[in-house]
Amino acid sequence: MSYSCAVIGLGSMGFGMAQSLHRAGLETYGFDRDAERESRFQSETGRAASLACVASTIDAAAIVVVNAAQTEAVLFGDDALVPRMKQGSVIVACATVAPDFAREMERRCSDHSVQYLDAPISGGAVRAAKGDLSVMASGSQAAKDAAKPLLDGVASTVFDLGESAGAGSAMKAVNQLLAGVHIATMAEALTFGLAQGVAPETFLDVISQCAGTSWMLENRAPHIVDGDYTPHSAVTIWPKDLGIVTEIANEKGLQTPITQAALAQFNAAVAMGLGAEDDAAVAKVYAKAANLTLPSKDTE
Amino acid sequence: MSYSCAVIGLGSMGFGMAQSLHRAGLETYGFDRDAERESRFQSETGRAASLACVASTIDAAAIVVVNAAQTEAVLFGDDALVPRMKQGSVIVACATVAPDFAREMERRCSDHSVQYLDAPISGGAVRAAKGDLSVMASGSQAAKDAAKPLLDGVASTVFDLGESAGAGSAMKAVNQLLAGVHIATMAEALTFGLAQGVAPETFLDVISQCAGTSWMLENRAPHIVDGDYTPHSAVTIWPKDLGIVTEIANEKGLQTPITQAALAQFNAAVAMGLGAEDDAAVAKVYAKAANLTLPSKDTE
Repeated sequence: MSYSCAVIGLGSMGFGMAQSLHRAGLETYGFDRDAERESRFQSETGRAASLACVASTIDAAAIVVVNAAQTEAVLFGDDALVPRMKQGSVIVACATVAPDFAREMERRCSDHSVQYLDAPISGGAVRAAKGDLSVMASGSQAAKDAAKPLLDGVASTVFDLGESAGAGSAMKAVNQLLAGVHIATMAEALTFGLAQGVAPETFLDVISQCAGTSWMLENRAPHIVDGDYTPHSAVTIWPKDLGIVTEIANEKGLQTPITQAALAQFNAAVAMGLGAEDDAAVAKVYAKAANLTLPSKDTE
Repeated sequence: MSYSCAVIGLGSMGFGMAQSLHRAGLETYGFDRDAERESRFQSETGRAASLACVASTIDAAAIVVVNAAQTEAVLFGDDALVPRMKQGSVIVACATVAPDFAREMERRCSDHSVQYLDAPISGGAVRAAKGDLSVMASGSQAAKDAAKPLLDGVASTVFDLGESAGAGSAMKAVNQLLAGVHIATMAEALTFGLAQGVAPETFLDVISQCAGTSWMLENRAPHIVDGDYTPHSAVTIWPKDLGIVTEIANEKGLQTPITQAALAQFNAAVAMGLGAEDDAAVAKVYAKAANLTLPSKDTE
């Protein structure tokens, strides 16, 4: 019997994941609030259906929306998905959410005999489209078993972080703390260098070969060098994700002063109207404060 | 004619650099305030001499001390080295110092017809001993030419950052900003995970394969996992190096809020009496504040 799945949310990550699943030979349905995206995916697969029609037949649904509120709306809001899914099918929840939210969703899914896999993803849009993501998975063995064909289709690495929802999201929050701070620190260091006469290209060439490098620096500094702020991942992600970190830290009584300093820079970027730009645009906050000129696309 | 050089400062970096130069076949003299270190190096080479005796014959002297004050003391203090060096020989200045200090030393060396290469190093003790460092070099072509055999012996990568002293030190300050923040952020993230039940080993295994990784995280987090704070690079480095960053930033009117947050954590570590421990011990500041227990060497 063939494995049938849906991807709900066809943004930069979800679209690539849905393509990867289709390419892997799974019966794949893609859905998005944006009709254009949805029909673009359907034209690639030749497989069109409403979610209402397939909800009761699919084995797995990957939820690749932007936050907890959208995840909850898909699962239990108007046109709630979970109550219509068949027993033993699985929700693969990929958005970055608080661990407590993941635990609550697991509980509510189990009321409908639907499995829930807490499954935040890492790797970016390019790797999503290659089926080469990392997944930080936690949930029951039954959830992992039910999700396996879907995970095999989208990921090259699945970290098994435990037997219940929450652990995957906890690890994702740890990753986002680091990733967000590293982006803002790259911007702080690049502008610090620029003020001393270090060209952004030289910064990238040298630092990427030195102890000061990070995955995020090597991924995002090129956007500044090229003056290209096309949003691969937008500034607005970070007030949300570092907000989740802050919420957890407050609950646990933890100090996160470096995270707070980075969060303030992303908030300043949003206040400057840069929310929809690539997150490397946080460098513009520093450049504006110090009256520095970053490379621009037009003058390249 | 053989190339003769001295390494002044036989700490974790200088000792390995001197070994690399000796192994490369250069006539290498090593000096340190610590007589035990100095005789240990001399017994490896079978070459003992006082600095006073060789100062006028060497082609190059690498200064691998901890800061600007020690660099100045070696070059121009009691038993000043520079006035005794031969015309056209070169000072290769490896300590992390402010760019203005490097420019001043270049000027003062030129009064004695001695070349000065602003040459901060990156890579750590293991790579120093392998002759595999990165050098961020700036200075006159004559300085670079005079230093070449020495640089070839200690480094696999020499970045040419320009024709005058200061640019090398500016790039080193950029690198140190990033490296220091990345260490403290690793500690913030590791303890943030630990408070949610993420074991430090799991943190390292997962994050090192995800977008949140950094060179420093992969290098320093193992020390915390092993509970081993043997100082490969001590906490006290960071108040000094991030202090240099702060000094430059203040001069240039730059905001460095993330650097300041990291610096405060290193200062707190020093205040806790951890200054001489490995810099990964900054995690103890977070652990103490949140009443978390980090892995200990004894319980492994």
